[in-house]
Amino acid sequence: MNYNKVTEDMIANLQSIVGSRNVIVEQEKLETYAGDEVPEAEWKHLPEVVVKPDNAQQVSEVLKLANRELVPVTPRGAGTGLAAGAVPMIGGIVLSLENMNRILEIDNENLFMVVEPGVTTGDVQRKAQEEGYLYAGDPCSADSSFIGGNVATNAGGNKAVKYGTTSKHIYGLEVVLATGEIITLGGKCVKDVTGYDLVHLMVGSEGTLGVVTKIYLKLLPKPKYNSVLLVPFADMQTAINVVPKIMTTVGVIPTSIEFMDNLCIKSAESFLDRKLPYNDAGAYIIIEVEAYSDAQLESDCENIAGICYENGGLEVFIGNDKANQDKIWKPRRVLAEALRVTSPVYCMEDIVVPISNIPKLLEAIEQISKKYTIKIPCFGHAGDGNVHATLLKENLDDATWYEVKEKVLEEIYFVTYACEGKLSGEHGIGAKRKKAMAKFMNPVELRMIASIKKALDPNLILNPDKLVELC
Amino acid sequence: MNYNKVTEDMIANLQSIVGSRNVIVEQEKLETYAGDEVPEAEWKHLPEVVVKPDNAQQVSEVLKLANRELVPVTPRGAGTGLAAGAVPMIGGIVLSLENMNRILEIDNENLFMVVEPGVTTGDVQRKAQEEGYLYAGDPCSADSSFIGGNVATNAGGNKAVKYGTTSKHIYGLEVVLATGEIITLGGKCVKDVTGYDLVHLMVGSEGTLGVVTKIYLKLLPKPKYNSVLLVPFADMQTAINVVPKIMTTVGVIPTSIEFMDNLCIKSAESFLDRKLPYNDAGAYIIIEVEAYSDAQLESDCENIAGICYENGGLEVFIGNDKANQDKIWKPRRVLAEALRVTSPVYCMEDIVVPISNIPKLLEAIEQISKKYTIKIPCFGHAGDGNVHATLLKENLDDATWYEVKEKVLEEIYFVTYACEGKLSGEHGIGAKRKKAMAKFMNPVELRMIASIKKALDPNLILNPDKLVELC
Repeated sequence: MNYNKVTEDMIANLQSIVGSRNVIVEQEKLETYAGDEVPEAEWKHLPEVVVKPDNAQQVSEVLKLANRELVPVTPRGAGTGLAAGAVPMIGGIVLSLENMNRILEIDNENLFMVVEPGVTTGDVQRKAQEEGYLYAGDPCSADSSFIGGNVATNAGGNKAVKYGTTSKHIYGLEVVLATGEIITLGGKCVKDVTGYDLVHLMVGSEGTLGVVTKIYLKLLPKPKYNSVLLVPFADMQTAINVVPKIMTTVGVIPTSIEFMDNLCIKSAESFLDRKLPYNDAGAYIIIEVEAYSDAQLESDCENIAGICYENGGLEVFIGNDKANQDKIWKPRRVLAEALRVTSPVYCMEDIVVPISNIPKLLEAIEQISKKYTIKIPCFGHAGDGNVHATLLKENLDDATWYEVKEKVLEEIYFVTYACEGKLSGEHGIGAKRKKAMAKFMNPVELRMIASIKKALDPNLILNPDKLVELC
Repeated sequence: MNYNKVTEDMIANLQSIVGSRNVIVEQEKLETYAGDEVPEAEWKHLPEVVVKPDNAQQVSEVLKLANRELVPVTPRGAGTGLAAGAVPMIGGIVLSLENMNRILEIDNENLFMVVEPGVTTGDVQRKAQEEGYLYAGDPCSADSSFIGGNVATNAGGNKAVKYGTTSKHIYGLEVVLATGEIITLGGKCVKDVTGYDLVHLMVGSEGTLGVVTKIYLKLLPKPKYNSVLLVPFADMQTAINVVPKIMTTVGVIPTSIEFMDNLCIKSAESFLDRKLPYNDAGAYIIIEVEAYSDAQLESDCENIAGICYENGGLEVFIGNDKANQDKIWKPRRVLAEALRVTSPVYCMEDIVVPISNIPKLLEAIEQISKKYTIKIPCFGHAGDGNVHATLLKENLDDATWYEVKEKVLEEIYFVTYACEGKLSGEHGIGAKRKKAMAKFMNPVELRMIASIKKALDPNLILNPDKLVELC
């Protein structure tokens, strides 16, 4: 694809569409929009111009202009992504949704919240809480990420075991297509089979099929009671074996089932500067349970604790009040930061496998780690098989790191696919994993993705150089 | 599109692919495959040949042949559809999945069942039960419909309020594309954002994008206790108002919240030949609640009954044992049959609106019913806004019925869209509602659907003449 550069004329045009103050061309300000939270320099690129529209109509005019002039457009939320999905890899326009940050409606009769894409997920959660509801989407970045970014990546998070990923909470979207048409897909109907499910095709398409300008979010009854359990196990296999037993024998789907391996336990311990219980354990499992009555919660916790003890749990710590719950969650919550202190340059992966294959995957990763003598602490979501294997650079020089990282990633992806897994559970492909997807995904599926992309964005202007190769 | 006829040569070819006994050409046997459960003659059409493959490889060879020879292929499950979706409207090959009826795997560690498309939904449910799980998909046709048809239409049913429609239970599909490639999309990973969500694009695409040959179904813990409540209300508005209150004030999402209007109450009463309580009520609401403990169930029922009494419920009948539950469900369950006795020719619609708009919609339908002096009893799923408005022909002559029906449908669809609704909540578009979709759907969405269809089925051989116009 031969894209054109942004011209002076086009900048004047963009200024007349969104107003001068919403067009950024100054080099130092552009830098803010050059990357997301992937730390490595290869995943940063300056846009030629940043445009901050205020409404769908302006988004439409910007896209019509870009589509006519063949200039690439990279939609951007809060820039908290972990796959270089919002990075303008070949320049052009960054379309920042930061000004579209209004909560438009709380519908108490149909239990929906309608929002613009630039609202932070934390604000969505708090607004739902205030109104007596639960918004169940809960990525770990909730306080900083935009709900629009959550839609673009189909963000997961800690509550996905019980409530599913972002996708499950989305019933309607207003989308601006690459050609500038504004269309509402779905809406407040809870069931809808009128044509293809385009809403959920858009969710997780990482801004390659359209720009989301309005989102219909489902609200749920707010659970009144919750408990958090910490259970150390001697080894990962024993820990993971307990997961299906909780769901079937106890008959409870917990809100969260998280795990961290011993490297993570040690890293959190050092970061928090306090001794953690059973710090030689092969694995911690953290379980959160919610209920609508106190009696139900108590009985669920008792049954889960029982199952854990019967299946190799070394001890069960239960947090019933906020202070103790925070204390249990803390080592898991600080992990990203703790690992960053150990190694400011790192590569956090997002592989996902069927739950029962987690131990096999982690054993293989340990072998790879030994083979290349780099540390790869692993943590993530035991309830849904999503493993954040994190490669640490530590003292390696840049060239060695790059070389080793490429080899290690290739081997990790290989065993992931051998374990019936996939490259990404919740962070997405973006630019970062595009090459890997080309290598590991079935070519027929790659072709399906490319053909749908071409069908909906014929000039390929939306978020180019992401997900799949199109030429 | 200029399709070719099925030739003698092609039949020989088909016989060599699937074996002679799995190729049907005899006129009287073809008639079985000419229609689904839409009763009117205009939605019947004979195929030229029926082919019954035994596995994905055979499906692939049939599709490659048809794609090369430009012969249309209509995939077919059990033929229990309600939108003429499996009717070969322009002849060609009917691809019946009836021989692919094996349950392939119960995965107790990851809680999945893997099945072929020709297993009846009832068999899926029973197998799950036997193994101690719940398969939560539950269309009213469970005992006769195939799970493959449920996938094709994204079937809804009585339990969608709590568990969602079929789509929510599907994590992976093996699909044969129009061009013959066999591809597995998704699988046993609970989270997956590796590329577009093609699994859920396939679900509900009514056999126009591919032929599903294997399905990964999620299993859930089996709830141990349930109750059914029948609550008559003086009028529909009061009845519907209680729905969000149950979810928010009580904090319970019931498994089912069904409604029937007074015409339906009377029709069921006459069909069952027993007096129903409050048979002059404007509406019945039937609520089913499930729980994992007896105490939880009791408390939920008590709270729901309380909310109903506070909000205009005339009385609350609770069925705690199977006999009483069946007695409560019976009038709702026999409705389709009861209406068929009243009028053997009828037209059952499947419109869906935001829950709070049900009363407004039903009032408008009553006005339309009076204007054209035909009866339009309404029943359906109050918990998800899905209304089965059923036009009765009764004593009208054929010509008048056809004319009146077209006008009435047009007016009903018009008010549905005025109520922010859609044409179909769970039955699909098929051939029956294709014209209506062309008229009522946003043209941009129609174009998106057509362009995706063309991208994945370039020769347009799969289930042609359904959903959208493609020339």
